Amino acid sequence: MAGPLEGFRVVDLTSMISGPVATQLLADQGADVVKVEPLTGDLVRYMGSGKDGRTGTFLSSNRNKRSLALDLKAEDGRKILSRLVSTADVFVQNFRPGTAERMGLGEAAVRAMRPDIIYVSISGFGETGPYSKKRVYDPLIQALSGLASIQADRETGRPKMIRTIIPDKLTAMTAAQAITAALLARARTGEGQHVKVSMLDAMISFLWPEGLVQLTFPGQETQVSRAQLAQDLVFETADGFMTVGAVSDSEWQGLCAALGQEQWLEDERFDTPHKRVVNADARLKLTQETLINRTTAEWLEVLDGHDVPCAPILDRAGLLSHPQVQANQAIEELEDPLVGPYRQPRPAARFSQAPYQPPDVAPRLGEQSEEILGEIGYSESEIAALRKEGVIKGPAL
Amino acid sequence: MAGPLEGFRVVDLTSMISGPVATQLLADQGADVVKVEPLTGDLVRYMGSGKDGRTGTFLSSNRNKRSLALDLKAEDGRKILSRLVSTADVFVQNFRPGTAERMGLGEAAVRAMRPDIIYVSISGFGETGPYSKKRVYDPLIQALSGLASIQADRETGRPKMIRTIIPDKLTAMTAAQAITAALLARARTGEGQHVKVSMLDAMISFLWPEGLVQLTFPGQETQVSRAQLAQDLVFETADGFMTVGAVSDSEWQGLCAALGQEQWLEDERFDTPHKRVVNADARLKLTQETLINRTTAEWLEVLDGHDVPCAPILDRAGLLSHPQVQANQAIEELEDPLVGPYRQPRPAARFSQAPYQPPDVAPRLGEQSEEILGEIGYSESEIAALRKEGVIKGPAL
Repeated sequence: MAGPLEGFRVVDLTSMISGPVATQLLADQGADVVKVEPLTGDLVRYMGSGKDGRTGTFLSSNRNKRSLALDLKAEDGRKILSRLVSTADVFVQNFRPGTAERMGLGEAAVRAMRPDIIYVSISGFGETGPYSKKRVYDPLIQALSGLASIQADRETGRPKMIRTIIPDKLTAMTAAQAITAALLARARTGEGQHVKVSMLDAMISFLWPEGLVQLTFPGQETQVSRAQLAQDLVFETADGFMTVGAVSDSEWQGLCAALGQEQWLEDERFDTPHKRVVNADARLKLTQETLINRTTAEWLEVLDGHDVPCAPILDRAGLLSHPQVQANQAIEELEDPLVGPYRQPRPAARFSQAPYQPPDVAPRLGEQSEEILGEIGYSESEIAALRKEGVIKGPAL
Repeated sequence: MAGPLEGFRVVDLTSMISGPVATQLLADQGADVVKVEPLTGDLVRYMGSGKDGRTGTFLSSNRNKRSLALDLKAEDGRKILSRLVSTADVFVQNFRPGTAERMGLGEAAVRAMRPDIIYVSISGFGETGPYSKKRVYDPLIQALSGLASIQADRETGRPKMIRTIIPDKLTAMTAAQAITAALLARARTGEGQHVKVSMLDAMISFLWPEGLVQLTFPGQETQVSRAQLAQDLVFETADGFMTVGAVSDSEWQGLCAALGQEQWLEDERFDTPHKRVVNADARLKLTQETLINRTTAEWLEVLDGHDVPCAPILDRAGLLSHPQVQANQAIEELEDPLVGPYRQPRPAARFSQAPYQPPDVAPRLGEQSEEILGEIGYSESEIAALRKEGVIKGPAL
């Protein structure tokens, strides 16, 4: 089996990040994901540098998919979509709430095309409520979910954004799991259902277990500021940056030995895990004053020797050559005739029954338009006519 | 149906965060998750303030589960586990690689107990390679995956950690999806398999679509520093902080109108989306100089009126009263006889065939030990003897 989702067809009307990354995970696991794009294409094709309508972000949000470029304003375009949906298991959209219904693609309409479909709605803020119709970007969810507050500057308290779009991609993971669960339920009951995920809900539930944990017990919310101001475990060495952590007593003993600072073991500020937390500022300052004196590699060797958790802080280019990243084959070098050489991450989950296979490159706009129409019963002459009328589009040959 | 995973049993030997949050998602969706704990309990029970061995973090990583406290060093304890596994669909462990095998709980041993089991290994760095046997904490993965580098200080370039444990929880999401996919594959083939997820792989593949996208095209990695230094979309107002974004031309026009700065539309530094990116520093500085003059609420109203994406930056306590969070019922007020009043996030994915039900509170240590032994065929007198011998443990009555 090519992957655990082999044999399922996903009709994917999503664009940007939250939807495409969700369906890419399904595609990585063998699902046949048909990316239905407007004739102008997903905007991500054009945001940033790339080749042939395929930016780096597009390549890594749409691999293993097929593209059908379709004019849904045309009657014939809507007929094509309807016929395609009748062959599908999952329908995914991430329009603003209400838009799918206006397009004639709400749940009831789609379920009429395929009664047992899994219908998936991904929204920014939820389907009702004062923000539901607002436009969404990732920073808005960082702002609303508490994430920007969690990252606030230690000195000034000024909120800070995370510089990678956590909410969009986390929503994608949440949606991919929920879609898979709904397929599993359908395998047992025969019934499809409507799966709804909002970015705001996804972030709140994700952050909660420790990021928002101070909200758990009513009346104890005043501790909120405490964790917010926790120290970074970032240390400068003679030649770069590293992290090192020592939580348990044995790790603390290992740290003191590795750093040649056995006298810290006698320091009563640090003689229990609790006191090491309370006196974290003093502890981390002493640690920093020691670590600055030798290189990252020297410290890693001696800390590893004492089984103390530690790692270099890699910059992004440093990832490529790190021996553990290489041992994991986490990043793959690929080659495509049109795109040229490019790299992709290997999907994180490994399945013993589906050995990893290199991905198909993300498609050009409409690359499989004709192939897909052929599969759902359109004749060659019908396809040629639809292309001539501009209802479908394929790449220039 | 209580949830799409109703009827599946998960034997969960994980502790801390990455495993428990994964299995909690399965439990939220109806799976019967048996948390097998050592007689001393998952350490998270005791890290932080809480009641009755249940900290805030424990409550929100272990809800909807049952606890079996079991001495796996005792022969009788291993027999109990074996009998339990024979009734299960999924077995999950997040020990350091090699540990499960030493405990007699490697894949082969567990598959002998239940041939079609989904066997899940969650690791920090991967199962082979120079880091595979190292102890792992969340900051180490932030350091190795590039996340700490992505968050580097704009002025100094010093790497920074994210102050919520993204890697652990993202690994949980990755594992939960993969487990669900493996159950779906088994529903069709009848075969179980081994699912492996490492925190390092999970983070690299998660960050990649834009956080690591500069690594996509060999030879273009020098652009890495560019995105790293991108501006925060955090603005100070007369009474707090907010975010506002204007990417498209229409959003930019809306922003200029809302802010009463129509002359920016004539400014040739800003007259295309591309130039607004290139001249972001100037643009954001002007925006900030305007926004400081009125309150967040005033700006939100006028920006909403022009359909410009915007949101207040909420601190964590502010979440509780925000009208959209309330409209979503994203945070639930619960009450337990022992824990007292407490709050939990509603699981983000909503399933139309499984209306949301309030969760069962996370269990006390060994709370269901006797109940579970009864289900797998132990008699009352056998259970009493096992408890007396200290092979199992239940809470004091």
